[in-house]
Amino acid sequence: MNYLEALERFKKYVEDIKNISYAVNVMHWDGSTDAPKSSFPVRGESLGFFSTLEYEMFVTKQMDEDLNTLLENIDKLDDKESVMVHKARKEYDKLVKIPSDEIKEYQILTNRAQHSWEEARKKDDFSIFSPDLKEIIKTLRRFADYRGIKNHPYNIYLDDYEEGMTREKLDIFFDTLRKRIVPLLKGIMDSKKNIRDEFLSRDYPLDSQREAATELLEFMHFDLDRGLLKESTHPFTMGLNIDDVRLTSRYDKNNMISGMLSVAHEGGHALYEQNISRDLINTTLATGTSLGIHESQSRIYENNIFKSREFINFYFPKLQKRYPEQLKDVSEEEFYEAINNVKPSFIRVDADELTYSLHIMVRYEIEVALIEGSIEVDELPEYWNKKMEEYLGIVPPNNRLGVLQDVHWSHGLFGYFPTYALGSAYAAQFANKMEKDIKLKETLLKSDFKTPLEWLNKNVHQFGSLLTPDEISLKSTNELLNPNYFCEYLENKYSKIYNL
Amino acid sequence: MNYLEALERFKKYVEDIKNISYAVNVMHWDGSTDAPKSSFPVRGESLGFFSTLEYEMFVTKQMDEDLNTLLENIDKLDDKESVMVHKARKEYDKLVKIPSDEIKEYQILTNRAQHSWEEARKKDDFSIFSPDLKEIIKTLRRFADYRGIKNHPYNIYLDDYEEGMTREKLDIFFDTLRKRIVPLLKGIMDSKKNIRDEFLSRDYPLDSQREAATELLEFMHFDLDRGLLKESTHPFTMGLNIDDVRLTSRYDKNNMISGMLSVAHEGGHALYEQNISRDLINTTLATGTSLGIHESQSRIYENNIFKSREFINFYFPKLQKRYPEQLKDVSEEEFYEAINNVKPSFIRVDADELTYSLHIMVRYEIEVALIEGSIEVDELPEYWNKKMEEYLGIVPPNNRLGVLQDVHWSHGLFGYFPTYALGSAYAAQFANKMEKDIKLKETLLKSDFKTPLEWLNKNVHQFGSLLTPDEISLKSTNELLNPNYFCEYLENKYSKIYNL
Repeated sequence: MNYLEALERFKKYVEDIKNISYAVNVMHWDGSTDAPKSSFPVRGESLGFFSTLEYEMFVTKQMDEDLNTLLENIDKLDDKESVMVHKARKEYDKLVKIPSDEIKEYQILTNRAQHSWEEARKKDDFSIFSPDLKEIIKTLRRFADYRGIKNHPYNIYLDDYEEGMTREKLDIFFDTLRKRIVPLLKGIMDSKKNIRDEFLSRDYPLDSQREAATELLEFMHFDLDRGLLKESTHPFTMGLNIDDVRLTSRYDKNNMISGMLSVAHEGGHALYEQNISRDLINTTLATGTSLGIHESQSRIYENNIFKSREFINFYFPKLQKRYPEQLKDVSEEEFYEAINNVKPSFIRVDADELTYSLHIMVRYEIEVALIEGSIEVDELPEYWNKKMEEYLGIVPPNNRLGVLQDVHWSHGLFGYFPTYALGSAYAAQFANKMEKDIKLKETLLKSDFKTPLEWLNKNVHQFGSLLTPDEISLKSTNELLNPNYFCEYLENKYSKIYNL
Repeated sequence: MNYLEALERFKKYVEDIKNISYAVNVMHWDGSTDAPKSSFPVRGESLGFFSTLEYEMFVTKQMDEDLNTLLENIDKLDDKESVMVHKARKEYDKLVKIPSDEIKEYQILTNRAQHSWEEARKKDDFSIFSPDLKEIIKTLRRFADYRGIKNHPYNIYLDDYEEGMTREKLDIFFDTLRKRIVPLLKGIMDSKKNIRDEFLSRDYPLDSQREAATELLEFMHFDLDRGLLKESTHPFTMGLNIDDVRLTSRYDKNNMISGMLSVAHEGGHALYEQNISRDLINTTLATGTSLGIHESQSRIYENNIFKSREFINFYFPKLQKRYPEQLKDVSEEEFYEAINNVKPSFIRVDADELTYSLHIMVRYEIEVALIEGSIEVDELPEYWNKKMEEYLGIVPPNNRLGVLQDVHWSHGLFGYFPTYALGSAYAAQFANKMEKDIKLKETLLKSDFKTPLEWLNKNVHQFGSLLTPDEISLKSTNELLNPNYFCEYLENKYSKIYNL
């Protein structure tokens, strides 16, 4: 067959999918922001229709043949086409290898599991959720078999979220964290340093927080003409396309810093989506390359930039001007220490910068053990608590504050959690290289936020999904992911704060 | 062929179209409210994709056969199915009779015409727009031929917006208006009555106007759990489905009443969409039956209710409480007169209740004359000014304030304008019957807004598109559209206000 015909059909397909995705994303956006609650059922039906339509457009004999034809002629394609075809072949194989009735059964199972998880959490009774979780793990193992995985079944799920990631690499990664961050936390806990942060929970009017949020996005050079900021229960970012990138935050009258950190975090995601090269428009590559790399962009703005001594030097006077009453008895240094206060806690999403990755380590070890069968689901609550004590030094008083806190497993999301920790590590590695390339700290001190953004644009953002995480890492930092940068960053930062 | 098979396929199609329409509507809603301007091109491509998809799903040999099979078995279908099949057959025939390349050319023409109209209006130069307008009229005449119209070509376009409406009926309608409203306006203009309304343009804070808008919707018994109110440049209403009805308004600090009237107007549309019978869910009939009937629901709330002496008796004290400074020197009677002040003006959308329909009459006469060829496009500006003087007693000083003010014709929307006047007339006819059935004025005086809504639910809303405008009119008022109710209503109202 003439590969040009196949290429034309493939490009037409990519174009159609872009048009459907736009609609689907707008529906999701609308559903998470304004839409009345009662709109849920009809939106669900519509989303179901499009999901089926996308499947039917993709999983066809013609597509299978076209992809093979294109792979046979891969040297005649340009870079973008070639990457798209490889990704599509991989996705196609993933979709056809699992029998469709098993996929349907699995959807029913995960739907049910979300309810049983909710119920279990509400009643603090793990046994309500455990039968479904067992079934999910069994199914994921079987699916890994279908997909022809010879080595550890967990690797296939890691790769779904982070191309090229394996358990072997992650073991080394978390080993490093375990050896360096756990002792660091112990040191902090043993230190005599007393950090005051009661002023963070004073009354901060919401309207003013909303204004401050927009102002912060402006400091970050987020282009508000090509995007927008709204509110939602759970902050998120959505890149509909590079000219339409949307993010949300939420504001709490008695927790001003939480809303600002959400904006910095989501703003980092949003900057990534907004600065993908225009060359990638109308391809499937105009989005972040992996969850880990995406998370690195949010973490670098939330932690390495916003929570840095240098940024606070610039930002605190502005906050003090906005909230003269609330911050009148607070020094810049006290503010910096308050937002970096380390306090081991049970709930991951409320964790500070240091303990956050330990939460992820707990989940990682559990996921591996569950998938390979070295622990049973019924042992999970006990195992969880043991790990929490080992790494964070605290034991949840109940399962609601422990193993039942996260929704991910009820969705079947195994292999997803590690990307949260990868993001922090990549962020530290990028920040380290930025310090060498552009003197990151000095730029922040000079209120120059454009130069760091340009570095990220040049080294990360522009490539979208054209490069793999490994390629991005190599190109921008001359090495693969190396968790030592993250550990070193935390050690330096917290040794200073806690006089270790 | 077995008609049950055909019916099943047809219902599946209706379901699919509902799912696509939901997405398309959400995209339109998003585009008119929050979406950044730069999102326009991608949304346009996506909307284009769905428009083609809908066409391809509908205009097929299979659909043609199925519709014929169903028509042959129409007695075996229930009411809803039967009406849907008849409507689909009509729509199908309309779409296939015009050659598709001519439809494409026409789209290019109307796209160009919108630009030439804008340019013409900006430069106040009708000759920039006239070549495209000539072409549009020529095309509409040719399309009417394709569609096999034997009598006046205008009738086919009237019927597109108002099923069953004809030029013959409209001539009688507008004759009545001409004979009764034009003299009424002359009488008002000659009266010595001086109405003060300067207080309407005092400073009314926007936040308070927004609160008042929500409050007004609550008075109207709009269910805010199944819908929402936002802001947009041009107020509009969108019934995505009966559990998700959205409307917008706009607020002007120095024109408080304008925002309130927008809410009352769009609220009327929204109540219609929200109160369609649940029986019609998942059919194509769960929407208003025609533009005229839809407009009657907005007009009845905007004019017959909101601007009534009785409603103001209830509402003015609330406004005075909300705006004690701005309304301290204003009496209830003065407020009532101010919002009903008659002032002939050039721009239709700013017109008062009485002169509004005269604006529509000008456009109606022009549309008929253009379509039948009794005037030429080049004579249009002069003809327009002549009609304005004849009916409203004023002559636009330029074409920007005259023939170039409306966007409709550049879109090819001929036959659309009359529905604005039909809406007012239907509203008056319904209000007249409500007075007899439920003592409308007394219910308003008693702040009972539920009883009028129930009358509208029972007689209009619930039927969606299951009944034609004529059927609704007959069922609810025992007669067909009769413009005398509208004229009588205006005569009574304004005779009192102006002591005629």
